Amino acid sequence: MLLPEPIQNLINALARLPGIGPKTASRLTFFLLRAPEDLSRDLAEALANLKSGTGYCQVCYNITAANRTECEVCSDASRDSSLICVVEEPLDVIALERTGGFTGRYHVLHGALSPIEGIGPEQLKVRELIARVEAGGVNEIILATNPSLEGDYTAAYLRQRLQPYSVRLTRLARGLPVGGDLEYADQNTLLRALAGRQELND
Amino acid sequence: MLLPEPIQNLINALARLPGIGPKTASRLTFFLLRAPEDLSRDLAEALANLKSGTGYCQVCYNITAANRTECEVCSDASRDSSLICVVEEPLDVIALERTGGFTGRYHVLHGALSPIEGIGPEQLKVRELIARVEAGGVNEIILATNPSLEGDYTAAYLRQRLQPYSVRLTRLARGLPVGGDLEYADQNTLLRALAGRQELND
Repeated sequence: MLLPEPIQNLINALARLPGIGPKTASRLTFFLLRAPEDLSRDLAEALANLKSGTGYCQVCYNITAANRTECEVCSDASRDSSLICVVEEPLDVIALERTGGFTGRYHVLHGALSPIEGIGPEQLKVRELIARVEAGGVNEIILATNPSLEGDYTAAYLRQRLQPYSVRLTRLARGLPVGGDLEYADQNTLLRALAGRQELND
Repeated sequence: MLLPEPIQNLINALARLPGIGPKTASRLTFFLLRAPEDLSRDLAEALANLKSGTGYCQVCYNITAANRTECEVCSDASRDSSLICVVEEPLDVIALERTGGFTGRYHVLHGALSPIEGIGPEQLKVRELIARVEAGGVNEIILATNPSLEGDYTAAYLRQRLQPYSVRLTRLARGLPVGGDLEYADQNTLLRALAGRQELND
């Protein structure tokens, strides 16, 4: 039996999300069918506004509201602008902010180097990071990419690129489980990793 | 740190879906943020069309396209109209149709009796089922509510209501795991349950 088209369309669209298979997709669809009208409406509106309502901070490339050119961290004068924490994704910024243990600024690369997937330095916000360093006033850069193969590779690459500048380079302490994902780390592990960050300059 | 409103809105909306917590909701949101524009657009459109594009069959109350008054099964003259399979949800119809082992019609109750949740016969399509029986031509009714407490209770209630009519009443064979959910049963279990259905009339 064929399902009515509006139902099949929603199942197909939901099944394209990560971690949602066809069974979960039809479960969610039939849940929405029974749920009050405002839930589907809220979801549809939130989805429609997602991209139009958000933009990137023109300093650190973190996600921000579309009507702002700088994110909350970059526009906060009390944050230490001589300390930059380089992360892969906006979700990593949220995880670090949640610890309350970091007072510097961020730089979001939007990914990690991956020769296999064809992601080179041009696909990441590397040039923008170098420009921030060249503009001066930066004393230390924490290379807080994920403790995974790609993250380590990206940190090694950035270390090489940043070596010519007189900037202290550090990496988050290996309290993080190797092969893991930064955003899933618990707050204490992240705090210890911040405190025990290691010198990269020899 | 506060997230930009459009992002927080989508996380909140997604977290209202069953089986999706705040962590999964933010994962999905940031995935959509990076994903091609057409995925969020497809999802938003499918959500907006879900309720307006669907309706209920005026005979069996299965889900159907909004421009039809009868579902595919009810408008198929080759299906046996003397045999009605009563199920709780439209998803159960899909599960039974997938077996290819049922040639009769359906009746969708849209739930099960649950005194705890305050769901009585008036909230279900019970009156409509009685009306179909009273209209005549029905020889057998399979009470295929879920093999759970509420499902068994609903079947017992319907048995009592349908006793006065000269209709054969059956229940799906207990090949189904007790406490389970009909739509998750595999096809062979469902086929065996259809074949071994049991008499309720004594």
